[in-house]
Amino acid sequence: EIVETITQLFSKSDCLKGKRALVTAGGTQEPLDPVRYLGNRSSGRMGYAVAQALQEAGAETILVSAPTDLPTPHGVSRVSVQTALEMYDAVLANFPNMDVIVKAAAVADYRPASQSEQKIKKDGTNRMIELVPNPDILAELGRRKTSQVLIGFAAETENLLANAQEKMHRKNVNLLVANDVTKPGAGFGSPTNIVSFLFPDGRRIDFPKMSKLEVARNLVGEIANLLGDCNKGVK
Amino acid sequence: EIVETITQLFSKSDCLKGKRALVTAGGTQEPLDPVRYLGNRSSGRMGYAVAQALQEAGAETILVSAPTDLPTPHGVSRVSVQTALEMYDAVLANFPNMDVIVKAAAVADYRPASQSEQKIKKDGTNRMIELVPNPDILAELGRRKTSQVLIGFAAETENLLANAQEKMHRKNVNLLVANDVTKPGAGFGSPTNIVSFLFPDGRRIDFPKMSKLEVARNLVGEIANLLGDCNKGVK
Repeated sequence: EIVETITQLFSKSDCLKGKRALVTAGGTQEPLDPVRYLGNRSSGRMGYAVAQALQEAGAETILVSAPTDLPTPHGVSRVSVQTALEMYDAVLANFPNMDVIVKAAAVADYRPASQSEQKIKKDGTNRMIELVPNPDILAELGRRKTSQVLIGFAAETENLLANAQEKMHRKNVNLLVANDVTKPGAGFGSPTNIVSFLFPDGRRIDFPKMSKLEVARNLVGEIANLLGDCNKGVK
Repeated sequence: EIVETITQLFSKSDCLKGKRALVTAGGTQEPLDPVRYLGNRSSGRMGYAVAQALQEAGAETILVSAPTDLPTPHGVSRVSVQTALEMYDAVLANFPNMDVIVKAAAVADYRPASQSEQKIKKDGTNRMIELVPNPDILAELGRRKTSQVLIGFAAETENLLANAQEKMHRKNVNLLVANDVTKPGAGFGSPTNIVSFLFPDGRRIDFPKMSKLEVARNLVGEIANLLGDCNKGVK
């Protein structure tokens, strides 16, 4: 099955030649002060694997990455950001020129309402912090998209498929990668993942546990399909 | 100067033979839900370098580490923790048997008052979260210490030496490593650091910018001094 997928991929890799792709990865960090932040758990490995697979398939690939310790995949251009707002700006600036956008980053939904310039001193008492919503990058891309293929991820801890279905439609994506982060072998920082691909036409592909790079290569195969006419020899 | 320091270290390394050391490293993560957490910026590199230098100098070394992607130094025993409370338990359980404790971790001062079992869904409105103070591990060790050599770190963004002096006395440590994280080459994730060693007797050693491993080896030299009678041939 894997061999088949890879064969399928390589036979379609010409489809991504000349295509421009943008991938987001990692978990954004929303500072409270120079030392403390609100973070989202994400090793960045899934997004980095997708960037690698897109580059291997011939796409000119930009990786907009929140802080990680991972090396940038060979041949990929990396733009480093820290916060959701910085990621929003980097993604929106590039969006009009892209053919494919894969939003694999774990973006903080909220950021602290205010940020201290200096390290906050503790005083031993309870403290309230006010959080304000961050812009929803994926939803904004869904609203703006014209010909772009837009891929989202849904990491859920309950009601996986129902939540993912709802997200796919609400965000107007062409494909949603859903994974239940509570499953062994599918969690944060794991080298493997267990995913389903959901499509707006109701199709769903369930995969067994596989490496994140295998998931990425399967995803690139579907992206090639979504970009169309690869099998007609037009490109 | 470096050669001198290393020579000094190796001539004293017998002092740490048979000694037991515990080092904390990394930034704790305080979960809000399975995906979101309150974090403290720290690559863990400084603490990992200290554990390596202690091990090289002959000490039996335990590394209590918050999440990092760093490899465990050769010969060091690693205990992995996520939160400040887990770190507190791991450190306090080992404390009575230790000769040296180096608290290099960035421990969250606060944790969310409550934690959601499931991923919190956003609703687009502002939100308040209540934070409660975490126990102060270093201060607790300072209260309990008998013969142990206790080393603290102070990462400051303003009034470095005044804040560090005050912390050294309040926490009852034998040596405080102070660094201004706003200086280029001294910040989080940097392979280098710019530090001062402060001692309760009023001594202060200011170092130029050097690698974190060089800082660690200088620190181990001072630990050997603090453990005493190395030059008298008693050990």
